[in-house]
Amino acid sequence: MPHPIAKQDFPVSNVRHFLEPGPIVLVSSQWQQHTNIMTMGWHMVMAFSPSLLGCVIDAGNHSHALVCNSGECVINIPSASLVDKVVGIGNCSGSEVDKFKAFELTPGKSEKVGAPRIEECYASFECRLHDDAMIERYNLFVFEVVKAHEAPSADEEESLHYRGMGEFMLSGQSIDRTELFKPSMLI
Amino acid sequence: MPHPIAKQDFPVSNVRHFLEPGPIVLVSSQWQQHTNIMTMGWHMVMAFSPSLLGCVIDAGNHSHALVCNSGECVINIPSASLVDKVVGIGNCSGSEVDKFKAFELTPGKSEKVGAPRIEECYASFECRLHDDAMIERYNLFVFEVVKAHEAPSADEEESLHYRGMGEFMLSGQSIDRTELFKPSMLI
Repeated sequence: MPHPIAKQDFPVSNVRHFLEPGPIVLVSSQWQQHTNIMTMGWHMVMAFSPSLLGCVIDAGNHSHALVCNSGECVINIPSASLVDKVVGIGNCSGSEVDKFKAFELTPGKSEKVGAPRIEECYASFECRLHDDAMIERYNLFVFEVVKAHEAPSADEEESLHYRGMGEFMLSGQSIDRTELFKPSMLI
Repeated sequence: MPHPIAKQDFPVSNVRHFLEPGPIVLVSSQWQQHTNIMTMGWHMVMAFSPSLLGCVIDAGNHSHALVCNSGECVINIPSASLVDKVVGIGNCSGSEVDKFKAFELTPGKSEKVGAPRIEECYASFECRLHDDAMIERYNLFVFEVVKAHEAPSADEEESLHYRGMGEFMLSGQSIDRTELFKPSMLI
């Protein structure tokens, strides 16, 4: 069984460290008393400061309405050990299932948003809706990350990357090319 | 030395197979007689059909003007063996360097756009600018993939995923969870 992971603060300007490599994430949201979790693969970093993320949340997802109504969510990164929960969460709808209960995940209190964090994930980014102009046309939400949390173990965690058709890629080894970069490019 | 890789057609609706896992890509562009290549990590899939991608190309990049003026580019995926070229391309500006020559990469003729493909990459996606409404505010380009090419070896290639600060993650092993998915979710 996965267990809650203690986390520490992390600069919001540096969420690219975790998100630019393209992991599958779990989006947790809350509106009034309704919480939900969705599995999301379509996201990207858009700016460092403010720390902006672009995410596609299809209008067919129960989370779409929760995020639109609350203007908030938390983006959580599950380790590869949670893969079966990640698939299960994507398979069902929050309109029918209480996903925190059904998947035995722990909602943790966020600091700056009302949506709960997922305690079993190794990194969590509290987000506020920054720009809703592209939601109607593309289901594209632009969020600002207002608080970031990472586990001390975060850099050793294995992330999940989705290829479609039921196939995931796991994160592999890291290689350091610092010495090849112009100093001004090292951000 | 890397060498040109023969490629075959691939359905444009399925570029998520390569891009959703979040690899670093090389964007090739052309306007009049000027070609360029840039290294890009901020991209995401936005829709299957039409096949839409969102990409952030900072206005400070030489490629920004080439792509704005031509309304086209090619998104190419380099294997991990090209990592030193990937860094080198990101370190310099196309306003000063002919990157195809400097990095000994082969421009290949595209089928549907004027911008050249990069023959040494294992997948190439020819793109037309689909929506320019978010360029001014976010440097966000929405492209439609109009033609996709993959090497027969593409599924065995190792991709590069950038973490910032000179550190890359390599793609790791694949795991298959097809049997856990609801059939309707297997896309």
